[in-house]
Amino acid sequence: MAKPLVAILMGSDSDYDYMVEACKSLEKLGVSYDVLVSSAHRTPEKTQKYVRSAKKRGIKVFIAGAGGAAHLAGVIAAETILPVIGVPIPSTSLNGLDSILAIGQMPGGIPVATMATGKAGAKNAGLLAAQILGVSDAALSSKLLKYKKDMAKEVDKKDARLREAHAKNYPNK
Amino acid sequence: MAKPLVAILMGSDSDYDYMVEACKSLEKLGVSYDVLVSSAHRTPEKTQKYVRSAKKRGIKVFIAGAGGAAHLAGVIAAETILPVIGVPIPSTSLNGLDSILAIGQMPGGIPVATMATGKAGAKNAGLLAAQILGVSDAALSSKLLKYKKDMAKEVDKKDARLREAHAKNYPNK
Amino acid sequence: MAKPLVAILMGSDSDYDYMVEACKSLEKLGVSYDVLVSSAHRTPEKTQKYVRSAKKRGIKVFIAGAGGAAHLAGVIAAETILPVIGVPIPSTSLNGLDSILAIGQMPGGIPVATMATGKAGAKNAGLLAAQILGVSDAALSSKLLKYKKDMAKEVDKKDARLREAHAKNYPNK
Amino acid sequence: MAKPLVAILMGSDSDYDYMVEACKSLEKLGVSYDVLVSSAHRTPEKTQKYVRSAKKRGIKVFIAGAGGAAHLAGVIAAETILPVIGVPIPSTSLNGLDSILAIGQMPGGIPVATMATGKAGAKNAGLLAAQILGVSDAALSSKLLKYKKDMAKEVDKKDARLREAHAKNYPNK
Amino acid sequence: MAKPLVAILMGSDSDYDYMVEACKSLEKLGVSYDVLVSSAHRTPEKTQKYVRSAKKRGIKVFIAGAGGAAHLAGVIAAETILPVIGVPIPSTSLNGLDSILAIGQMPGGIPVATMATGKAGAKNAGLLAAQILGVSDAALSSKLLKYKKDMAKEVDKKDARLREAHAKNYPNK
Amino acid sequence: MAKPLVAILMGSDSDYDYMVEACKSLEKLGVSYDVLVSSAHRTPEKTQKYVRSAKKRGIKVFIAGAGGAAHLAGVIAAETILPVIGVPIPSTSLNGLDSILAIGQMPGGIPVATMATGKAGAKNAGLLAAQILGVSDAALSSKLLKYKKDMAKEVDKKDARLREAHAKNYPNK
Amino acid sequence: MAKPLVAILMGSDSDYDYMVEACKSLEKLGVSYDVLVSSAHRTPEKTQKYVRSAKKRGIKVFIAGAGGAAHLAGVIAAETILPVIGVPIPSTSLNGLDSILAIGQMPGGIPVATMATGKAGAKNAGLLAAQILGVSDAALSSKLLKYKKDMAKEVDKKDARLREAHAKNYPNK
Amino acid sequence: MAKPLVAILMGSDSDYDYMVEACKSLEKLGVSYDVLVSSAHRTPEKTQKYVRSAKKRGIKVFIAGAGGAAHLAGVIAAETILPVIGVPIPSTSLNGLDSILAIGQMPGGIPVATMATGKAGAKNAGLLAAQILGVSDAALSSKLLKYKKDMAKEVDKKDARLREAHAKNYPNK
Repeated sequence: MAKPLVAILMGSDSDYDYMVEACKSLEKLGVSYDVLVSSAHRTPEKTQKYVRSAKKRGIKVFIAGAGGAAHLAGVIAAETILPVIGVPIPSTSLNGLDSILAIGQMPGGIPVATMATGKAGAKNAGLLAAQILGVSDAALSSKLLKYKKDMAKEVDKKDARLREAHAKNYPNK
Repeated sequence: MAKPLVAILMGSDSDYDYMVEACKSLEKLGVSYDVLVSSAHRTPEKTQKYVRSAKKRGIKVFIAGAGGAAHLAGVIAAETILPVIGVPIPSTSLNGLDSILAIGQMPGGIPVATMATGKAGAKNAGLLAAQILGVSDAALSSKLLKYKKDMAKEVDKKDARLREAHAKNYPNK
Repeated sequence: MAKPLVAILMGSDSDYDYMVEACKSLEKLGVSYDVLVSSAHRTPEKTQKYVRSAKKRGIKVFIAGAGGAAHLAGVIAAETILPVIGVPIPSTSLNGLDSILAIGQMPGGIPVATMATGKAGAKNAGLLAAQILGVSDAALSSKLLKYKKDMAKEVDKKDARLREAHAKNYPNK
Repeated sequence: MAKPLVAILMGSDSDYDYMVEACKSLEKLGVSYDVLVSSAHRTPEKTQKYVRSAKKRGIKVFIAGAGGAAHLAGVIAAETILPVIGVPIPSTSLNGLDSILAIGQMPGGIPVATMATGKAGAKNAGLLAAQILGVSDAALSSKLLKYKKDMAKEVDKKDARLREAHAKNYPNK
Repeated sequence: MAKPLVAILMGSDSDYDYMVEACKSLEKLGVSYDVLVSSAHRTPEKTQKYVRSAKKRGIKVFIAGAGGAAHLAGVIAAETILPVIGVPIPSTSLNGLDSILAIGQMPGGIPVATMATGKAGAKNAGLLAAQILGVSDAALSSKLLKYKKDMAKEVDKKDARLREAHAKNYPNK
Repeated sequence: MAKPLVAILMGSDSDYDYMVEACKSLEKLGVSYDVLVSSAHRTPEKTQKYVRSAKKRGIKVFIAGAGGAAHLAGVIAAETILPVIGVPIPSTSLNGLDSILAIGQMPGGIPVATMATGKAGAKNAGLLAAQILGVSDAALSSKLLKYKKDMAKEVDKKDARLREAHAKNYPNK
Repeated sequence: MAKPLVAILMGSDSDYDYMVEACKSLEKLGVSYDVLVSSAHRTPEKTQKYVRSAKKRGIKVFIAGAGGAAHLAGVIAAETILPVIGVPIPSTSLNGLDSILAIGQMPGGIPVATMATGKAGAKNAGLLAAQILGVSDAALSSKLLKYKKDMAKEVDKKDARLREAHAKNYPNK
Repeated sequence: MAKPLVAILMGSDSDYDYMVEACKSLEKLGVSYDVLVSSAHRTPEKTQKYVRSAKKRGIKVFIAGAGGAAHLAGVIAAETILPVIGVPIPSTSLNGLDSILAIGQMPGGIPVATMATGKAGAKNAGLLAAQILGVSDAALSSKLLKYKKDMAKEVDKKDARLREAHAKNYPNK
């Protein structure tokens, strides 16, 4: 098993339904990763230890998913100079607006790469982590290019199917 | 000089114009306090050390002011079981809506007592800290009662002045 | 039966599903409490009487849950110098943004400790009440420390379970 | 001097710059009114006494201006069955969105007639109070009709002036 | 059948589930009313004719419910000097925030008494209409007082039931 | 089959449930159209080619539906001087507030005609496209007039049905 | 002087500073227009008369600028099948969020082409009106193409100036 | 002069006051960069050409600043598999909430690393670009570590200065 390059942390196991999309992106691109539940608030020491030891274990990029007053990504970014990607989980009554702002409005000096809310954001977190690694990994870069082309083809297929179905229901157009 | 009972932390020295209102509340009520700049993101170790050693130094309540993706109160609350009061500083382009949500929408298990944005919130943070201490301090409790009565009298005075001024401009009423 | 130290008020019985979480926190920590439905708007006299007589009955902290133009916590805070904790109930079409602002944006002089919306907020209201009492109650303070450690352990268990389940579905990682 | 029919309360003397617009509307229509500073939070007893005795003193309509967690209108509405008009003062960092929701999102059973934020809202509060009195006062009703017609004429005048000025700057149109 | 005193308009028949609450309030208080579907946008002439002829038909107060870019209340207010009450229907994807602002932020000169979103707001629209009529109708005023007292009693009953049920589940408190 | 005059693009086939309403509007008015899935982000070249060649193929108006950081309408508008209508799809956790702002807040120089969120917006996009074509097509203009009158009649029918049903449930009114 | 093709209405003369940008766009493209102040609320009859007679006077497109509970565009759209463009004026304390929603969230059947807030939106309103007329006016269409190209050149010039100025301040880059 | 590794694009020269902060971050860390004005909407071809040729010119990371319906970052991300960082410029009447959502809520498949609004966000964009390059550049990684330490020291200095100044004004504490 390859040493993980990307660390995916989530503040609660209830975030998994979203964060598994980040895992899937990385699986698809063949990027090894580590996934764990560790909270900025409930397990600060565990989070801190994990982050401080990550670089020497080979981690290159962090992904952190959390909801509400989502501090996980910021707490990780405070402890590392590796890129940190934040995924706003829309788990509270405010549907993730709180999560977007709590992750995204970081002060100068401590960047967090904020994604969209929910599954799309988690999926993109995996892709961005791969893009970051792809900056110095030509093979991964090629995989990303192929992924992008496949995505376009997928849209084309859906387009064809939709046009056909539409024409059936609206034949006289 | 009395040992401080309340610790007032702010994430940036630019928060001072707001946070000094918390100091003033405590000065007025004769509650000793400590004030410092320590960031959740830029000086996480300093913040952590300060919080972990606070209880044995006699600190009973924390007040934390920060703006934007304001993590300071949450990071303190992660490290202590003392009450933590958060003041959302309206220093970003979103006027503090981000700060309110980033401080207020804490997950279950880690409470932060969130105040209003800005100077009113900072003033109230000092008062709430005093109210918390007043639960077991009858003398302070009396001062708080007096403070409340004085506040009502102040409103009465302003009412009288305003009615008089209004009557001058609108004499025929 | 112990004399209640914490008073939990809610503006409507429909808030109970949320507010019971505050009760549960206090039950867990062995803090006695009183729970009642009393509205700032529909039963202002009852609310006022309850609050005015609370201190001599031994109440030390108030918790108030309400939704929409949520005035209950503020109305209580107007009548007492005991700490008041407000829980924004997300019961209206705006999902609690109205409740957050109606409880949180209190004017200078009248603090209300605002929690997160919904069940997490109610749970935290109970915990914050206990933390406030814990300032002068070493036994309760110890229970809170244990509660915090148990919470961390619980995260660790969930982490282990989640990693294991994930590894089954994504075996080749 | 006529006995006041409308009571205009404001939570703080700093609200006067807005609330004077309500006075002006009533002055213009010859409706007698009372104006005072009384806070829901800082002077709850004064507010309550004023409201409870208002009906027998001849008050028919209340106007209440407040900002932030604006409870004044709701607190008045809790004590009376006279119509209560609320004016959201945009005095906090959130520009009055908090005030709108804290006044407007009242629970079933306790209506508050919420106006727009700021001066336009205060002006309209005075007009609505007059409209309410006009339901059973034909003379006032006639004044309101004239007011409405004058307002239309005023728009016509502004229209003429603006068209002329525009044509000067853009002569070739 | 009594001549209607209150006119309840809604922009779409899909608003009826909400607006029936206004009818119920008036039924309960014995106030006669007229209810109709008439849109500001789809049937502007019908709306205009209805409003212009309403005063001579005995209408004293208007209630208008609409959602989204809700113009109905404002369009009515443009045509009358009778009080107009607006109910923001939360029927769009924005859950009524659009409706609140489109009804509430009226320009100076044209007041609309804005209620809360949804059923509570519609219920209160009926009550406010009755309060307005009650200003010059002592019998209705008495009914409103009784309504208010009954409402308080209802809260007391719910309080008793809830305390009892809670005590069963949490017996050792 | 008539050459399409209106091009309806959507960023994802999941937008179809909304966008079919634009098709229905055009079908009803006998306006020929083309419908396709093409993403600003996933198939930028396809989108660009389609837009660049549209004018010579006879397209007169574009309709673009997308959700979240909805760039499709803006990307089309960047490539054409034909009118572009944008439909904010409420598909993300923020219910379309993101889509409204991402489509609507276009910079000076590049207009996009933004519709309401969701099905009403898509329906209106079709109507606006027809109105634009109707500016120089008297027959279509007549159809639009008839459509508008039918819509008013439909409201009248619903009004009659609703009044009748209401009267059954509330007979004594 | 050419007969106006575009009618630019604004609800208040205070909107002129924004709406003059629509005039400027049309002046630049040689499109004749009419500009007037007419309010949906204060001069409903004038507005209605102007709109109803507009088509026969040769008006092809409406532009309406208003702020707050901005009903002008919707009220025009209710009376015409000509395209209506709405400009949300950011004149209230909410900075135009109210205006965006009050103009944009129109119900199905009555489209309004909503622009961005403020000057950019007004400028674009003029351009969109020209684009709509350009659908059947080849000369205007050519002017729009030239306008678009000039705009690109303008960006290029600004780019050159900015790079040069930047290089002076940061010479070693 | 070193070949640029980071490309900083902004949609308008008026964004420069913000975006120069990204330049400063990179200057401080010795990372070469290119800065230019190129709009997604006004110069789509220029933007596209620049992005498509960037990789072979040695660009590794993109930074894009734009405001309102900010499409620049998304349009770049559509054309490349290099990491794209977006900076929401708070230049519109909505203070950047529009920019945050228009940049941040990207669909699955096309990640954009969204920063905070304004100068802090632009500064962090430069830092994140450096962190991304630092993943495979040990020397840059060391500079980032030093930068982080210096930032902490800077906070310490400000803390000392603030404490001292505070103590002067509040000597008896």
